[in-house]
Amino acid sequence: MSLPPPIVAFDLEGVFLPEIWIAVAERTGLPELRRTTRDEPDYDKLMHGRMAILERNGLTLADIQQVIASMDALPGAVEFLAWMRQRAQMVIITDSFYEFVAPFLPKLGWPTVFAHTLEIDDRGMMAGYRLRVRDGKRKAVEAFGALGFRTAAVGDSYNDTTMLGAADCGILFRPPENVVREFPHFAVARTYAELRAEIERFLADC
Amino acid sequence: MSLPPPIVAFDLEGVFLPEIWIAVAERTGLPELRRTTRDEPDYDKLMHGRMAILERNGLTLADIQQVIASMDALPGAVEFLAWMRQRAQMVIITDSFYEFVAPFLPKLGWPTVFAHTLEIDDRGMMAGYRLRVRDGKRKAVEAFGALGFRTAAVGDSYNDTTMLGAADCGILFRPPENVVREFPHFAVARTYAELRAEIERFLADC
Repeated sequence: MSLPPPIVAFDLEGVFLPEIWIAVAERTGLPELRRTTRDEPDYDKLMHGRMAILERNGLTLADIQQVIASMDALPGAVEFLAWMRQRAQMVIITDSFYEFVAPFLPKLGWPTVFAHTLEIDDRGMMAGYRLRVRDGKRKAVEAFGALGFRTAAVGDSYNDTTMLGAADCGILFRPPENVVREFPHFAVARTYAELRAEIERFLADC
Repeated sequence: MSLPPPIVAFDLEGVFLPEIWIAVAERTGLPELRRTTRDEPDYDKLMHGRMAILERNGLTLADIQQVIASMDALPGAVEFLAWMRQRAQMVIITDSFYEFVAPFLPKLGWPTVFAHTLEIDDRGMMAGYRLRVRDGKRKAVEAFGALGFRTAAVGDSYNDTTMLGAADCGILFRPPENVVREFPHFAVARTYAELRAEIERFLADC
């Protein structure tokens, strides 16, 4: 009997791209934008805080997109993606926003991306955000499973672990050590070469 | 309020590619391979009939893949896809097999494809097939809806109509007239320019 066809779900930031808000904080000289869910666990508060900072500094979506357009993919990411799309179907699932990731898509070879959306007011300022669905990474991988795929999922951080847990094969990419310790059943890859090896293992069976 | 993000699901054969079995029938000089579900409504019987014909004529998967590799996308398909992937997320959902469509993927710019799989025996002959899931086109579009997307679906024939019906916006592309008559609520596009216009309409609201 043949195995069901494989599909691989990837987180975006930390796997193929640097963290977007940190890059924006650096390029705009606004260190307050470096705050993450580690500093403010309430995501809605965190986002409204970020929007208030942008508002105070008169930074529009176009300004942020200009910063993002100047960012590069992580070294080796483009080559990894070129390899990956010849080996199996893949989808990128991110908790970032289409308006942010759009400038990267040509660099990454136009992968399919599941993201969220921003609300922009008539001055071009970020006025809100809309989560496509709660816990969307996990739900997407579960949906692929229900559609008859064997699933692998790759992510770098705590908020990817429900997605990795929902997949037939969960792979941590360059994770912090506390995540490795808390989720010892996930494979760990620290280079793209190791990630290729883990995905080959999944494709062969997992 | 912003709309949920859009995703467009496309059938493959008849939308971006010629019908694969008909091309194989023509290039191999085996007209029996032209039979479709219109001639034999029992898909399993049809597939086993096709496999018996290939077996009798000693045609391996590699032989068929060679025919398929020489096929071209429909005129205008590549340009349409280049436009499409800059406008919204897209996925191709086909009732064909990964082993058949693989030779086309580079020509189409490596879109994400949901397909079925073949079973190949140790002589390289088609020995069976495995449907990833029943009614997979409809279920995939329903899954995208459940993941918070606004959905459009594009297909050319009767077997796409459940997918089109499950989408927020169903578009028939170059359909036979009986399908147009039976499903008057679907939009109809007969050229890629018309298809672009229908998709623009969906992206604006639908």
